[in-house]
Amino acid sequence: MAKADAAVSPFAPKALPEVPVIDGVRFAACEAGIKYRNRKDLMIAVMDEGTVAAGVLTQSKTCSAPVLWCRESLKSGRARALVVNSGNSNAFTGKKGREAVEMTAEYAMKAVGCAQSDVYLASTGVIGEPLEAGKFAHLLDGLARSAKPDAWADTARAIMTTDTFPKLVTRTATIGGVQVSINGFCKGAGMIAPDMATMLCFIFTDAAIAAPALQSLLAAGAQKSFNCMTVDGDTSTSDTMLMFATGKAAARGQKAITSADDPALADFTAKAHDLMRELAIMVAKDGEGLSKFVTIEVQGAENDRAARTIGLAIANSPLVKTAIAGEDPNWGRVVMAVGKAGEKADRDKLAIWFGGIRVAHKGLRDPSYDEGKVSTYMKGEAIELRVHIGVGKATSRVWTCDLTKEYVAINGDYRS
Amino acid sequence: MAKADAAVSPFAPKALPEVPVIDGVRFAACEAGIKYRNRKDLMIAVMDEGTVAAGVLTQSKTCSAPVLWCRESLKSGRARALVVNSGNSNAFTGKKGREAVEMTAEYAMKAVGCAQSDVYLASTGVIGEPLEAGKFAHLLDGLARSAKPDAWADTARAIMTTDTFPKLVTRTATIGGVQVSINGFCKGAGMIAPDMATMLCFIFTDAAIAAPALQSLLAAGAQKSFNCMTVDGDTSTSDTMLMFATGKAAARGQKAITSADDPALADFTAKAHDLMRELAIMVAKDGEGLSKFVTIEVQGAENDRAARTIGLAIANSPLVKTAIAGEDPNWGRVVMAVGKAGEKADRDKLAIWFGGIRVAHKGLRDPSYDEGKVSTYMKGEAIELRVHIGVGKATSRVWTCDLTKEYVAINGDYRS
Repeated sequence: MAKADAAVSPFAPKALPEVPVIDGVRFAACEAGIKYRNRKDLMIAVMDEGTVAAGVLTQSKTCSAPVLWCRESLKSGRARALVVNSGNSNAFTGKKGREAVEMTAEYAMKAVGCAQSDVYLASTGVIGEPLEAGKFAHLLDGLARSAKPDAWADTARAIMTTDTFPKLVTRTATIGGVQVSINGFCKGAGMIAPDMATMLCFIFTDAAIAAPALQSLLAAGAQKSFNCMTVDGDTSTSDTMLMFATGKAAARGQKAITSADDPALADFTAKAHDLMRELAIMVAKDGEGLSKFVTIEVQGAENDRAARTIGLAIANSPLVKTAIAGEDPNWGRVVMAVGKAGEKADRDKLAIWFGGIRVAHKGLRDPSYDEGKVSTYMKGEAIELRVHIGVGKATSRVWTCDLTKEYVAINGDYRS
Repeated sequence: MAKADAAVSPFAPKALPEVPVIDGVRFAACEAGIKYRNRKDLMIAVMDEGTVAAGVLTQSKTCSAPVLWCRESLKSGRARALVVNSGNSNAFTGKKGREAVEMTAEYAMKAVGCAQSDVYLASTGVIGEPLEAGKFAHLLDGLARSAKPDAWADTARAIMTTDTFPKLVTRTATIGGVQVSINGFCKGAGMIAPDMATMLCFIFTDAAIAAPALQSLLAAGAQKSFNCMTVDGDTSTSDTMLMFATGKAAARGQKAITSADDPALADFTAKAHDLMRELAIMVAKDGEGLSKFVTIEVQGAENDRAARTIGLAIANSPLVKTAIAGEDPNWGRVVMAVGKAGEKADRDKLAIWFGGIRVAHKGLRDPSYDEGKVSTYMKGEAIELRVHIGVGKATSRVWTCDLTKEYVAINGDYRS
């Protein structure tokens, strides 16, 4: 996790996208001074009655107090409020952490006028420092009152920690001929190796979809988006992805969806998964200290799990990442990473491409391999690496970034 | 893997130890010009008839041609020659790699006058470049002729790649009242996350121990030494640890040992394991670009495997490693690493110490924790980190180093 004043990622979008209002949700953010100065660090989303929720949360054995809270709230499948703070993750804070969560939820509940189990909480920032909820919980009432349907940009910024740009994405889909919108935003730049979700990601839609169907759709999407993305192989204690559906499209004639397998949901599922993929890629593109964005295609693996494991082994290898930082097409290290992944592989069937140029096949260097050509390719900002394992038909795509001296600098003095 | 001209590790011993001759083994090394200039890069160990061998080899699915060769030779359990080159690992070199291995073994066999299966080979260096055995195999005859019992230092240096110092260790043990010697040397500095062995490690003894007993002793030792050490979490394609016993101590009255459980072997086993541990620690102390050597003690884990997995998760975390490089006692990242290890852990029972100072316990920051005191401790060169998981009684000790800008620099321009 980096200092907030790091240079902006070269992959930052030029501007935030224009996103439509999602009927049934309003947002507000403010400067609560939790850790940062002159920066919004507290946000609320207020949702109308009838909103349902789905979520995937970190599998970390040392997960944060807000993660435990969300796990409880998700049992009801209903949502009225989402409160997120940045600057402190409220992780490894023991009984105090639980108390901070309860106090925040209490104030949110009163501000919105809902049940405790309708409240969702997320915190991101330093681990192990007590979060003083008393310093900001009283602000929630005013925030809820001032919440507006179009405050997406402020909200997406309020959850940033070491991110160098806000990550906000929109999609439109149709369900049974009715147009619905999906907006999502997320944060994350370091301690990124999601295990069922990423640091923080929130998705909102006006579609009418029952909670179990929404949950199924979200979990499937996470597997092919955030769970295929890594910055440094370090899994956060706070990974939280939540999706809220206000159901307001029902008023415009959308027949409510109750099963994830309903053919009427196909377009929505495709668009929602596409949105998740774009958000996940944005996180990799904001990896701490990165100079290059890296896409790894694994083909010919034994099965889907093996394909992803091999992709992540390559993506997390410090030797592969530093070679890319040094613009060195060091495919020998890719061979090493495939070997250490522990999945079925046949050295003599392995083939490797950098940006469409085959550098190795049938277990040795490609005879026609032109190092000069590949070296030129490596000077680009976006690097594509393809590996064919040669033992099956499964594929995966994994996104990551290079490992630079800046990553080390950023993380050597973040906390002190 | 670093350039050969990197600054010498601050943990390098002032001088190589004086090691005794091992009756039945002779060594020679020379400059074969495989990759490096003005540096010995080829060595042979010639062993008398009756020598038995044991080995543990990398579990990598893309292992090198010499690793496959050793796997075959180990079936006989006999050894007469060990040939090692540095500068080229002969990994991912396909049919050519196999041919290079066969040619080298052929020349070694003739030079020593033994069976092919008595020959052991190891190569270390760049992956994927064809190894031209024709350029050095003819040197083996002369090398074997000139081999001397006391050429340990030259030999230990000839296997170095990015190592900044040679790693040579000796122990003396008694078996049934007869004194025997154990000498070992190894190499390794990057691509170090051994999976059953490290890059290269060779151990010699004059003890009379049957091959199966030697194998059992070696495998047990690897588990508590090289398999508890990591530099960068990247497992090599060439990890090879071999142990040779000439049996010459039998002439001095040592009763031959046939079982690893023989009580007469207890002292030898303890000393051999101690030697392996010292060699493994030397590798961590020569980690590429390191500024600090780190020892991680895990206590109170559910079982031995869990203790080691948690220790390695901490040791391989880029966020923990960069924090240590930045002299930041960032125990929140230790909590994160325990959480991501996937082993049984209870957030509210976890306790963490830096160098004897408890910074966290019972799931939160230690109330009496003095950050100034810990910060002073972090300025030292050797850092001890202790974690008590609180769910069982198993322990492990893992050795690693920090992650510095120098590691990134070294690995960004090693190959080109």
